[in-house]
Amino acid sequence: MNWKIAARAEKMNPSAIREILKVTERPDIISLAGGLPSPRTFPISAFAAACAEVLQKDGQGALQYAASEGYAPLREAVAAMLPWPVDPAQVLITTGSQQGLDLIAKVLLDPGSKVLVETPTYLGALQAFSPMEPEPVSVASDDQGVVPEDLAAKAKDARFVYLLPNFQNPTGRTMTEERRAAVSAAAAKAGLPIVEDNPYGELWFDEAPPLPLTARNPDGCIYLGSFSKVLAPGLRLGFLVAPKAIFPKLLQAKQAADLHSPSFNQRMVSEVMKDGFLDRHVPTIRALYKRQRDAMLAALTREMKGLKVEFNTPAGGMFLWLRLPEGMDATALLAKAVERGVAFVPGMPFYAGEGDPRTLRLSFVTASVDEIDTAIAALAEAVREQIAHNAAAEVGRQLAASTH
Amino acid sequence: MNWKIAARAEKMNPSAIREILKVTERPDIISLAGGLPSPRTFPISAFAAACAEVLQKDGQGALQYAASEGYAPLREAVAAMLPWPVDPAQVLITTGSQQGLDLIAKVLLDPGSKVLVETPTYLGALQAFSPMEPEPVSVASDDQGVVPEDLAAKAKDARFVYLLPNFQNPTGRTMTEERRAAVSAAAAKAGLPIVEDNPYGELWFDEAPPLPLTARNPDGCIYLGSFSKVLAPGLRLGFLVAPKAIFPKLLQAKQAADLHSPSFNQRMVSEVMKDGFLDRHVPTIRALYKRQRDAMLAALTREMKGLKVEFNTPAGGMFLWLRLPEGMDATALLAKAVERGVAFVPGMPFYAGEGDPRTLRLSFVTASVDEIDTAIAALAEAVREQIAHNAAAEVGRQLAASTH
Repeated sequence: MNWKIAARAEKMNPSAIREILKVTERPDIISLAGGLPSPRTFPISAFAAACAEVLQKDGQGALQYAASEGYAPLREAVAAMLPWPVDPAQVLITTGSQQGLDLIAKVLLDPGSKVLVETPTYLGALQAFSPMEPEPVSVASDDQGVVPEDLAAKAKDARFVYLLPNFQNPTGRTMTEERRAAVSAAAAKAGLPIVEDNPYGELWFDEAPPLPLTARNPDGCIYLGSFSKVLAPGLRLGFLVAPKAIFPKLLQAKQAADLHSPSFNQRMVSEVMKDGFLDRHVPTIRALYKRQRDAMLAALTREMKGLKVEFNTPAGGMFLWLRLPEGMDATALLAKAVERGVAFVPGMPFYAGEGDPRTLRLSFVTASVDEIDTAIAALAEAVREQIAHNAAAEVGRQLAASTH
Repeated sequence: MNWKIAARAEKMNPSAIREILKVTERPDIISLAGGLPSPRTFPISAFAAACAEVLQKDGQGALQYAASEGYAPLREAVAAMLPWPVDPAQVLITTGSQQGLDLIAKVLLDPGSKVLVETPTYLGALQAFSPMEPEPVSVASDDQGVVPEDLAAKAKDARFVYLLPNFQNPTGRTMTEERRAAVSAAAAKAGLPIVEDNPYGELWFDEAPPLPLTARNPDGCIYLGSFSKVLAPGLRLGFLVAPKAIFPKLLQAKQAADLHSPSFNQRMVSEVMKDGFLDRHVPTIRALYKRQRDAMLAALTREMKGLKVEFNTPAGGMFLWLRLPEGMDATALLAKAVERGVAFVPGMPFYAGEGDPRTLRLSFVTASVDEIDTAIAALAEAVREQIAHNAAAEVGRQLAASTH
């Protein structure tokens, strides 16, 4: 049988993260690898009540085909919860915000189109864009995200820049108010559309992050949001907000992709969100994740002492970014770490361009505080072992060199 | 702001069916247009019990991120219910079978790729394929589906043929055993993969349809199924079965598209399907739809008497195909019909090539028997009015011609 694969599919490769996660499903491994919210935060009893209510009130409506745009009361709730004036007609409910990335790629990317991304950037976005065969270009970034001057220098002919300003995946970094103003101005000056992805924005620890980039220039941005981190990922519900210039095409792409997102789930989330539920629920997630971030920072400070390991202090979200000492490689370290019962994600797959092999991502939200302590101690042991191994190899090389 | 649209998106147009459905949402219109299952068939109390059970048993698991392949017990249940030996590892759970079409297009279609379709074919498939910019080619079809000789003649360099052998959308026609054997042999001889879409196969009225094409040559076919017509569409769950040669690419496309289909919904459907629920439930849908098909056939026979309208007798499914008398146009008729309170879908958008403007699709499942009687009487009035209008116009044309 002549199964001829499309050119775009020839380029698709198994996700590095996915392959790693397979290893970490072993029960003897503490995984700091995945981007899984803590299941302790899922409001199970609220969902159970909402399911019963939705089926009892209008089960036939909840189980029928529905509009591709999404359930009207949910679109209204999304518009109302965003911190700038949003017309519900601009809100498209998506099957997770991952689908939003797929739809944007279909509508805005031709083969070979330049798309600008952060250094490093969210791997899932690179994967979502990849079937449309664009050329991702990495914009120089520091601990606040993209550098505006480099963004301006690379903006010409780019279809859009993809940015994650709050508690970025993978680095956990956040754009300051000043940086946002500069990035927004640079993009507007270059006529460069921004795709702003904000799955983690509500998960702040001490203070809310600055206003989204989209709030500063709604006609120049597509905004992506998600219910996965404030309610639960297993419902697969996210949304996008798009300017009128582009909304109809995204809607058509949505209809072709899966007709609509599950109407039952949309009504269930709409029901749960009534009466300010998120205002009560989200602070409990923030408090939990802050405790776990603090535990990880304390463990890293304690266990990595003297190892010349660098790491940041994320102001929210789920991830912390770590840099190993010179000469080390995070991918090589992973094998040693797994032997010692701890997993993480090496940084390299998150780079669209040249990467830093010394970097790695740690999630502080899935494992408990006790598990974090155990895991970071094991990770430090693995780092020490790798340093010793590298030193021995170096001695061996020098000996070999001196005997010839 | 420079929103530059991708070439594929420039070609996307609002769905004709969608625009028509908007009109038919008016409460004074009886719609025979949509492809909506009767909400009376939705097993609401079974769903309510399943929701409660799933959340109580393992709510944290049901609400967490999950594998892109789908929930293992659901994949096993799908493999077990299919009438040929299927390895659950070949089953991919999709966000409705519409998503299966999107994934297949991404993996198998390059811009300009030839893809063979029936005459006419499912509009939603044309829309799902369209973003990948293939060239659909219509294969000559009769009341049993594609004609094997024309399929063989057009097979060269086609990526696949898309077929709906059971109670096809839009025509309601079914491939006989003999035709299936001939089509399967022609495809195998040409090395032409088959994409077999079977959303309606369980909705047979007097006897089950012949074995799927995929059962005859599993390595040469991708099979698409859906829970939308046997349980409810609002959960957005379907599945595909793909040979090992192609499954990994479809899985990667799935992961990029929405990570996975809602884990909660998958567990809910898996729970509902336990203990042979479908074996008890589906016969009630068959009985209801058969009564409604019979009511529509009776009403058409009664009301269209003398109007030279042709229609078929579908052996299952949801749709009936009607052909207006010579010189009439179904799209022109629609406006008249809506004025009289009834809506249908003109046949033209279902043709990839040259179409028959006299054809139209009627759904017999959404409206009640009483509504069907009223709607078909109104439709007959509209046909009569249009015939009279056409006759008057013709007289006018002849007069005008004779006076010059």
